[in-house]
Amino acid sequence: MRPDLTDARRDLTFDVEAIDEQGQRSTVAIAGEHPLTLYVDRRELVTLMTLGQAPEALALGFLRNQRLAGSIDEIAAVHVDWEVNAVAVTTRAGDADYSARTSRRTVTTGCGQGSVFGDLMDEIEAIRLPADARLTRRGLHALLDAVRRRETIYKQAGAVHGCALARVTDDGGPEACAQILHYVEDVGRHNAVDAIAGYMWLERIDGADKVFYTTGRLTSEMVIKCAQMGVPILVSRSGLTEMGYRIAQQVGLTLIGRATNTRHLLFTGAERLTGSAPDR
Amino acid sequence: MRPDLTDARRDLTFDVEAIDEQGQRSTVAIAGEHPLTLYVDRRELVTLMTLGQAPEALALGFLRNQRLAGSIDEIAAVHVDWEVNAVAVTTRAGDADYSARTSRRTVTTGCGQGSVFGDLMDEIEAIRLPADARLTRRGLHALLDAVRRRETIYKQAGAVHGCALARVTDDGGPEACAQILHYVEDVGRHNAVDAIAGYMWLERIDGADKVFYTTGRLTSEMVIKCAQMGVPILVSRSGLTEMGYRIAQQVGLTLIGRATNTRHLLFTGAERLTGSAPDR
Repeated sequence: MRPDLTDARRDLTFDVEAIDEQGQRSTVAIAGEHPLTLYVDRRELVTLMTLGQAPEALALGFLRNQRLAGSIDEIAAVHVDWEVNAVAVTTRAGDADYSARTSRRTVTTGCGQGSVFGDLMDEIEAIRLPADARLTRRGLHALLDAVRRRETIYKQAGAVHGCALARVTDDGGPEACAQILHYVEDVGRHNAVDAIAGYMWLERIDGADKVFYTTGRLTSEMVIKCAQMGVPILVSRSGLTEMGYRIAQQVGLTLIGRATNTRHLLFTGAERLTGSAPDR
Repeated sequence: MRPDLTDARRDLTFDVEAIDEQGQRSTVAIAGEHPLTLYVDRRELVTLMTLGQAPEALALGFLRNQRLAGSIDEIAAVHVDWEVNAVAVTTRAGDADYSARTSRRTVTTGCGQGSVFGDLMDEIEAIRLPADARLTRRGLHALLDAVRRRETIYKQAGAVHGCALARVTDDGGPEACAQILHYVEDVGRHNAVDAIAGYMWLERIDGADKVFYTTGRLTSEMVIKCAQMGVPILVSRSGLTEMGYRIAQQVGLTLIGRATNTRHLLFTGAERLTGSAPDR
């Protein structure tokens, strides 16, 4: 049974006045950023700073990616109330207490200052990504074209990262097809990936035949989260770190970095990228 | 008395093989990323994921910016040992216990997933940045030129953010002068700013007449940290968020975003940027 959800998306950009290098005043759109405190069965867990595009999915994905809730079926409701900057998650059991698990985990969280590293390195030992997943080079280009054409907060206001979950198909016909199932932007790249994980949970989407795209860097934590979500192919516009590279090798994930609609670098899991590049 | 420090900088890039869009193999430099667990008087505090360029300064700056240690004089030693991925901080008292303070703070840390937001919003009420600090537009351009000319890990390998602390002087002579006192890159932008804070502590550098530059976005946490360090002018190559903007207004900080060597946008604290742009 699907949890009961609010739909409390925020306005994503705000207009402010700025003065350019010529001394000219103009109105500029900037990205929103709001604190959102997550409560589970009335216990405070964490405060996330978010753009507010998908707060319900973010809360769910946080619980999933931090391995706090084991299944979406445990969740009865996710209610966001921006009047108090809070998201209240209610479990079906009604008395979840994640504080013991978070006291150890949250000494290590987010974006290089801490990470869920310690525990997760243990867990990724068990991850097996599907060996037979494939992406054609035509399919990769179709995905990158779809991302490039998208109207984004980044294009309007900058200061956010975007993540996409896509189904890419190439039946050998005239064109490959890339369908973006979810595209989430947020002020932190970990929030954007967590919100995608939340949508996958809610809609019971299997990651095995999907491709994950992010504008952000492929650090250890991004690679671990992608592997946990069961998505075998990870594409980024940005670069990667040595630890992201090593973990991708370990779990057998295909990493493609510096990907634009004309260029890319394939780092690991090379057997999954097939075919030749489309003519340009 | 200066703490006793190791000097345990890591190799910052690693060569890996990649395959480009034409199917050509080449060797590509990628940025290092290493877990570094911080112990204070033998108590484990946090694990930071770091490039390893300035691990001692990072540890000190983390303690400073999280408001765990009140003064550099409390610190006797900072010893990094990469064999065990640990940094051991010893206090002069010898029995510091920050666990109570971190249990509350670290539910909120780093890059949009949590932040030091709750407590810090209280503290910034007390911050007063020097009203008479000035930066000329020629000085700003000199700073951006100095940043642009610098050899960086970002240019070699991407996937890192850089932060600089600079002294910019303009006595009305033929050219303004920008002196970069410290430049730190890291896989997380918060680590880079924390390492700069660590150097400022170690070398007892006053922020009041300095300029802070970052390649990263100006979110609430970045603005708060800059204000805490007493630096009145914050310049970024990237954009800003609404909360970053509002906090900068509140503490009277000058925010300059989207700054390249030819362009910029001045958002807050406009009175500190003076003079006209240099001829190009």
